[in-house]
Amino acid sequence: MIGDPAARVVVAGASGFAGALAAQLVWGHPRLELTAVTARSDVGTRLDRLYPRYRVPLELTELDMGEVADLDAAIVAYPHAASAPVVAEMRSRGLKVVDLSADFRLRDLETYEKWYGKHPNPELLEGAAYGLTELNRDSLRGADLVANPGCYPTAAMLALAPLVEQGLIADVVINAMQGISGAGRGGGDAMHYVTLTENAFAYKVEAHRHTPEIEQSLRELGFDRPVTFVPHLIPLDQGELVDCYVTPTREVTTDELRSLYAERYADEPFVRPVDDPPGLRDVRDTNDCHVHVAVSGPKIVAIAAIDNLWKGASSQAIQNLNLMLGLDETEGLIRGG
Amino acid sequence: MIGDPAARVVVAGASGFAGALAAQLVWGHPRLELTAVTARSDVGTRLDRLYPRYRVPLELTELDMGEVADLDAAIVAYPHAASAPVVAEMRSRGLKVVDLSADFRLRDLETYEKWYGKHPNPELLEGAAYGLTELNRDSLRGADLVANPGCYPTAAMLALAPLVEQGLIADVVINAMQGISGAGRGGGDAMHYVTLTENAFAYKVEAHRHTPEIEQSLRELGFDRPVTFVPHLIPLDQGELVDCYVTPTREVTTDELRSLYAERYADEPFVRPVDDPPGLRDVRDTNDCHVHVAVSGPKIVAIAAIDNLWKGASSQAIQNLNLMLGLDETEGLIRGG
Amino acid sequence: MIGDPAARVVVAGASGFAGALAAQLVWGHPRLELTAVTARSDVGTRLDRLYPRYRVPLELTELDMGEVADLDAAIVAYPHAASAPVVAEMRSRGLKVVDLSADFRLRDLETYEKWYGKHPNPELLEGAAYGLTELNRDSLRGADLVANPGCYPTAAMLALAPLVEQGLIADVVINAMQGISGAGRGGGDAMHYVTLTENAFAYKVEAHRHTPEIEQSLRELGFDRPVTFVPHLIPLDQGELVDCYVTPTREVTTDELRSLYAERYADEPFVRPVDDPPGLRDVRDTNDCHVHVAVSGPKIVAIAAIDNLWKGASSQAIQNLNLMLGLDETEGLIRGG
Amino acid sequence: MIGDPAARVVVAGASGFAGALAAQLVWGHPRLELTAVTARSDVGTRLDRLYPRYRVPLELTELDMGEVADLDAAIVAYPHAASAPVVAEMRSRGLKVVDLSADFRLRDLETYEKWYGKHPNPELLEGAAYGLTELNRDSLRGADLVANPGCYPTAAMLALAPLVEQGLIADVVINAMQGISGAGRGGGDAMHYVTLTENAFAYKVEAHRHTPEIEQSLRELGFDRPVTFVPHLIPLDQGELVDCYVTPTREVTTDELRSLYAERYADEPFVRPVDDPPGLRDVRDTNDCHVHVAVSGPKIVAIAAIDNLWKGASSQAIQNLNLMLGLDETEGLIRGG
Repeated sequence: MIGDPAARVVVAGASGFAGALAAQLVWGHPRLELTAVTARSDVGTRLDRLYPRYRVPLELTELDMGEVADLDAAIVAYPHAASAPVVAEMRSRGLKVVDLSADFRLRDLETYEKWYGKHPNPELLEGAAYGLTELNRDSLRGADLVANPGCYPTAAMLALAPLVEQGLIADVVINAMQGISGAGRGGGDAMHYVTLTENAFAYKVEAHRHTPEIEQSLRELGFDRPVTFVPHLIPLDQGELVDCYVTPTREVTTDELRSLYAERYADEPFVRPVDDPPGLRDVRDTNDCHVHVAVSGPKIVAIAAIDNLWKGASSQAIQNLNLMLGLDETEGLIRGG
Repeated sequence: MIGDPAARVVVAGASGFAGALAAQLVWGHPRLELTAVTARSDVGTRLDRLYPRYRVPLELTELDMGEVADLDAAIVAYPHAASAPVVAEMRSRGLKVVDLSADFRLRDLETYEKWYGKHPNPELLEGAAYGLTELNRDSLRGADLVANPGCYPTAAMLALAPLVEQGLIADVVINAMQGISGAGRGGGDAMHYVTLTENAFAYKVEAHRHTPEIEQSLRELGFDRPVTFVPHLIPLDQGELVDCYVTPTREVTTDELRSLYAERYADEPFVRPVDDPPGLRDVRDTNDCHVHVAVSGPKIVAIAAIDNLWKGASSQAIQNLNLMLGLDETEGLIRGG
Repeated sequence: MIGDPAARVVVAGASGFAGALAAQLVWGHPRLELTAVTARSDVGTRLDRLYPRYRVPLELTELDMGEVADLDAAIVAYPHAASAPVVAEMRSRGLKVVDLSADFRLRDLETYEKWYGKHPNPELLEGAAYGLTELNRDSLRGADLVANPGCYPTAAMLALAPLVEQGLIADVVINAMQGISGAGRGGGDAMHYVTLTENAFAYKVEAHRHTPEIEQSLRELGFDRPVTFVPHLIPLDQGELVDCYVTPTREVTTDELRSLYAERYADEPFVRPVDDPPGLRDVRDTNDCHVHVAVSGPKIVAIAAIDNLWKGASSQAIQNLNLMLGLDETEGLIRGG
Repeated sequence: MIGDPAARVVVAGASGFAGALAAQLVWGHPRLELTAVTARSDVGTRLDRLYPRYRVPLELTELDMGEVADLDAAIVAYPHAASAPVVAEMRSRGLKVVDLSADFRLRDLETYEKWYGKHPNPELLEGAAYGLTELNRDSLRGADLVANPGCYPTAAMLALAPLVEQGLIADVVINAMQGISGAGRGGGDAMHYVTLTENAFAYKVEAHRHTPEIEQSLRELGFDRPVTFVPHLIPLDQGELVDCYVTPTREVTTDELRSLYAERYADEPFVRPVDDPPGLRDVRDTNDCHVHVAVSGPKIVAIAAIDNLWKGASSQAIQNLNLMLGLDETEGLIRGG
């Protein structure tokens, strides 16, 4: 640690995959101090015993609001509906909060309640910034409450943003595939190694909760039609590949699209347009998003590759927290550098 | 073997993945006799040394037309362009032939030559039956030359046939993912375990040779527009999952679609409509195709799961050979029955 | 099915990995009729829904002793201690039984109770034959109750038998590795895909219940010293590789050992001595055991490869049932033959 | 980079797995400057195109001795015999060198030539320090030429050192398993994904070149008998698990052994004695070695887990280079610290 920390941070919900990685990233961050890791299970276990691949030598404790009241910031990795009350309490005590749940992602209460049930704290919806960093950077600087996006909306929107901003989308279908870490801990036999190795399948084909989140982001950029989104699980640990099939509003060429993406993302530290279709290993364990665009038959195909646990969850939370605290957006997120 | 064999068979090109499996299936077939296995590499090696998981105790030999002249049938698993002359010679000697290459799949010579280069034996095109069994059964019974379909067209068309037959398709996008066996032997570092494990990526995004083959089959069933098709490799051995996103010509419901598929495939021994999205393990090492259909947002999603080496290549070849020889279509393809 | 079945069979405990495969093997057996599949969980589910890769269209029911009383044989795949009472009841009603649990493997009650706790039915111990087929074939022909061996003892003893029979073993260390199916269903996060992919580790290093079973078999062949046995889990589904490191009682050469193994296993339909170290894929989904022997430094190394669910459990149960019923030992176990 | 670099470094042979990782580690090192990456293949390719998961934006060039003459240090990742002349030339120009090949590991020329063939530069053997850091730290500080150990000897010796130092070893058998990255680039169909997934096997059972290297290290610590060492490939990318089965010279208990290891490794930054058998994921992408010891039947079992590409090759090279340059041994090797 060089100099004083910019913030003292608690990670709540650190026993799950996303929370544990968030804790590791805070732990290794040059300007943040990881003060506590709390959880609703595995209390009393050291985090580096539960996840030896990470290096956090702190013991998981129960969340005690009194104890965290004097901290500067929190990353909350709770399930939806369980998260909002915790976030509300933290906000009332002055902590800046990045929330990894869905509770503050949808700006429209009715849409939220259709997909997730009754909202515990609708009063906070208006003040929450949506943390897809590259598309909402201005509203994230100095923000107090950030709703970290879903992993699929993150990849889908980074693939689609240049097209929707140019009014190029007449229609879009999104086909996504994700590694098993995206399904989280637990799950019983459905997550058993034997069930999943040498296997692949779609799930939630008719309706997935990330669909309204993608539609909300597209709407804000000017495309206001329903989309089709189908996710799949494939047999690997971390990684997410999202293919967007766009019916264009006018004729385009691959070259024109490549130029558009190159220009759009020229100044982005974590988004890299690539000429070959991106592989998941290229972005594993990074906050990077590789995007590839081409004309294929009558459609535009835009593909984004991210690590679902990193850019799709925990490292994007750090990226947002950096902005909330006035730090350089890339602090703690660039290896070897 | 019960009674006399219905046919004495050579498998040419048995050193590759599809040819080796074809040899194994002929070997275990109750009515066929595997007389020879030939190859252009690994000559002198016993097939059960090259592929211990199979059980064929025959030595790979060089193809000698004089020696195979008195046989009844051949399965040819050569690369395109190399296949046609071999098939032509075999046909001239009276063998029935199932060809696993692309050489006789496209009925239009110009289309073939656009995608594959000069055709060595265009005179045979007209007499070749296209072997997607469930869609072309009548022309396969007793046929002398069958072009076995590509794996992607097989899965895509089994997913789409009920829709196109009912005129329900206004537009279609096909997203496919396949295990690594689909890429064949060889390939060097691109197929290295370390390159592919924990990885997934699209390939041939702008144009894949299976696209015109899919378009040809759709056209014959009444849909005559270009399609977009994007394949991916995912980290498993055998299996292929094809998602077809269809813009419907009229409003439909999932229930209506399920009934349509149930009825269309009611008498098919190898195609099973399933209510849950199919997993690749469910069809591994079988000639089965599981199809799933649903409405998802503004589209119909039709998903087919097959084993790319089985229904996508070698077991469909046996299914076709059975029909060519007047045998029951399922002979040698049902386990534990 | 050709002619009358030789026996009508129930598989009890068919919801687990070994029981489900046993059901599939009976289902596909030309001389056995699968009359019922019972389970303590998943009752009411069709077995081909629970395990689509198998093809058994029967519904899992609760075990009803009255209903199975008139059957000829049972395969019981229950946990130890739960198995013995069920087996006792079935035997009292005249069924021949293959028991996949540990309840009748150890001939010495005291040893059993040290490792497994109180034995529910010690009176049956004496009448049970130990079903490592290749080493106990004579006592299995016509037997009424067979204790199917553990997977590790099966592979270890097939690797070691030629050596111990020749008095060549002064000392032995057994290092084993197994795919995840060996750990069975259930297991929670310990069996989560994310926990196990790209991982490998030893377990039960200080003491594993298969050690006394291996020692018992070695003792019967003349080697009466304690052995060290350490198992590992490796990231694959089915397969088991067992390396036995033997301090020889006299100097030997690799050539001499190869001849010994070739002769010892010359007439065995399922055991194949191989000159190259065997791979797990070579034996997957088969009842085969590949054994490899060589001198390495001051030791003899004997390696056996089996499929833990097949020869290590369910297909060996069929092999034994064949002998119990007077059938050919290989019936229902040879593909493509 | 904080302040001036301690050394300007070339990585020669950076197109292979170990060389590429070494380049990445130098690139991210706070006190080293990566000046050039050279290779004998892929010249002209940027390293971050060849290995996108790494982040080194330098182009691979041919090694030009004139150009590297003014640098401070080199890491050489060439095959044995090809390495020695390059190292000799670099030494003559004053560079400190860590050599990842086998050329300077064996102190005895005759032993080297028995296993590897004629040595190109035997005159350098005497001056080379053996870089198993934890066992040879004193001779590495300030050294000019370090022979980086083989991956198997590294893990084996870290598992065995406390035992051999205490005279506890009467006999030892070493069973090792390694991920596929250990086999390096190239390899053709033997390294094809389809060959290796769902597979595992031993190789070089009768003799492996790491055996004399292990024996040399044991001899220097007082144990002078031949050992048996058998390696295996298992289906994962990075990771190596080495089980050492030791016949003890006197009776010992697990508790006593655990205390011995705890004390022996108390001050080691990268070696951690663990009470549960270590998993490969726990050490992946780290310079860590987890060691576990227990009594199992009549033997001591000592297990070490490392990442074969890190502690087994490239990160140990950095650890050694740090010592050679007078830097803190852990510089550039601790994440999130």
